[in-house]
Amino acid sequence: MKLAPAEADRLRSALATVVAIPVTPFVADGSIGWDTYAVLLRRLVDSGVTVVTPNGNTGEFYTLVPAEAWRATEATVAAVGDRAEVLVGVGLDTTTAIEAARHAKEAGARMVMVHQPVHPYLSADGWLEYHRAIADAVPELGIVLYVRDSRIGGTEIGRLGDSCRNVIGIKYAVPDPVKFASVARDAGLDRFTWIAGLAELHAPGYWAVGAQGFTSGLVNVAPALSIAMLDALRAGDFSVAMKVWESVRPFEDLRAADSSADNVSVVKEALAQLGLCRSDVRPPSRPLPGDVRVRVTAILSAWGLHAGTANATGVRP
Amino acid sequence: MKLAPAEADRLRSALATVVAIPVTPFVADGSIGWDTYAVLLRRLVDSGVTVVTPNGNTGEFYTLVPAEAWRATEATVAAVGDRAEVLVGVGLDTTTAIEAARHAKEAGARMVMVHQPVHPYLSADGWLEYHRAIADAVPELGIVLYVRDSRIGGTEIGRLGDSCRNVIGIKYAVPDPVKFASVARDAGLDRFTWIAGLAELHAPGYWAVGAQGFTSGLVNVAPALSIAMLDALRAGDFSVAMKVWESVRPFEDLRAADSSADNVSVVKEALAQLGLCRSDVRPPSRPLPGDVRVRVTAILSAWGLHAGTANATGVRP
Repeated sequence: MKLAPAEADRLRSALATVVAIPVTPFVADGSIGWDTYAVLLRRLVDSGVTVVTPNGNTGEFYTLVPAEAWRATEATVAAVGDRAEVLVGVGLDTTTAIEAARHAKEAGARMVMVHQPVHPYLSADGWLEYHRAIADAVPELGIVLYVRDSRIGGTEIGRLGDSCRNVIGIKYAVPDPVKFASVARDAGLDRFTWIAGLAELHAPGYWAVGAQGFTSGLVNVAPALSIAMLDALRAGDFSVAMKVWESVRPFEDLRAADSSADNVSVVKEALAQLGLCRSDVRPPSRPLPGDVRVRVTAILSAWGLHAGTANATGVRP
Repeated sequence: MKLAPAEADRLRSALATVVAIPVTPFVADGSIGWDTYAVLLRRLVDSGVTVVTPNGNTGEFYTLVPAEAWRATEATVAAVGDRAEVLVGVGLDTTTAIEAARHAKEAGARMVMVHQPVHPYLSADGWLEYHRAIADAVPELGIVLYVRDSRIGGTEIGRLGDSCRNVIGIKYAVPDPVKFASVARDAGLDRFTWIAGLAELHAPGYWAVGAQGFTSGLVNVAPALSIAMLDALRAGDFSVAMKVWESVRPFEDLRAADSSADNVSVVKEALAQLGLCRSDVRPPSRPLPGDVRVRVTAILSAWGLHAGTANATGVRP
């Protein structure tokens, strides 16, 4: 059964929002804390999040064994029910990605996001074949591409869309908005939903040139801030969006430092300070040193978030 | 049982050579051609190769399902017997890497090479923890690190060596010989075997500053050329080494083009032209376009290699 055009339209519309990438919380023995995971997911949905991506990079996908990733898919579907779309991250070798995509379908998800291949020898033609194999294996699911390589152009994306009608969205994560604007137009601005894949700090610049959604890891901590930025961008009010930008910048700068070494560690430390989950990350990420933890505390305080406000959804600055 | 000091010394010496990364040949249905694989392995060993790395990048590691990678380990040990050391590539999440390392031990290999983690959020501290977990899980095996990130310095490598005495070698693949020379000295030049991880074109410059071995994918095609370079470098004859360099350069340039898109495709095309295996690669690599295939033919011809010389081990230019 193929993805019906009406359903494809519905999913394309659904992607035009904050695409939340939930963290994967660990318990003391290093395994995943599934109860906590469900609480964190419901907190996101209660805050107005309508698309969640289990097995994304903020979920430490590359530290999970496949069985954990599959269970994360199931746990996400169970936690959000009909209140949000579940966009399941799949990746690694083609066979493993296809098996995960089929599992996502069985689990009840309606979309998968295909991680950029980790193989070091990536050609544009081979990139296309990799994604075609996965998209063709689950014709009833919506497919979102995760593009992190500037060599993948609008031509390849357009060709993939021509042969796989279930490709409905592109999460574009090359830090170059001119390239993004060009690729989107070369591939077809209106046939896909274009998602700014580098989160809040890049969202306004990408929105100005065609993005209709953005991904977020920060949304785990302060969903109200992400939603405030989304609302401002939807309203075309870049002035308000940039007020949010200024508020989230110190947090996102900490995450981006040292080639994003602490990208997830900062998010989990903030969640730990709010009493929502442990701060533990798996290697090759690291626990934060004390001076960075102090800076996280200061940022949360500036946002009006403190331990005990764990159920708060974040306060506008 | 821990790696005995005498065995560690023996393995360190063994690594001071051409470290061959064999291709993984595919048959028409896309699965691995195990018989052909064994023939290719024996051709390498017959040509004087003494270290082989199944599940390396030239073996398209990231396109293999774990069961294929495990079988590649077993097939390599079976093919080379006692004539070469088998250095098994392991990687992905920590649990999967540890399971593969334990399997390598069971299969009879004496060393594993740990691929750089693919997780995008890599910290130096977390890099250390990742490798420590793997090295500690197989204390009886020699561990070779594969360093592709300039943020991993001599301090981290030295600390890892202090706590894991089975770390015996470093395959260094950052394209900066000054950085390499510095890292090697900061970590300890003599306590590890330093392997130039970017193959023949980088080998002379890295050898001059401390490398005692180099990796090779080209060796699959023309083992005599790699061995000629090794012999020249061991003799301290950089003039002869650079004659080989000039001979291999067009081939290696084809492999490096477009961010190494065709790194393996060029090797397999050459092997196909020699009648040794099919040229097929898995996505995201691609089959070579016709104009590049013609250039491969010309290079083989310049090396004195043609179809029908399949068993030749390569001719000095």
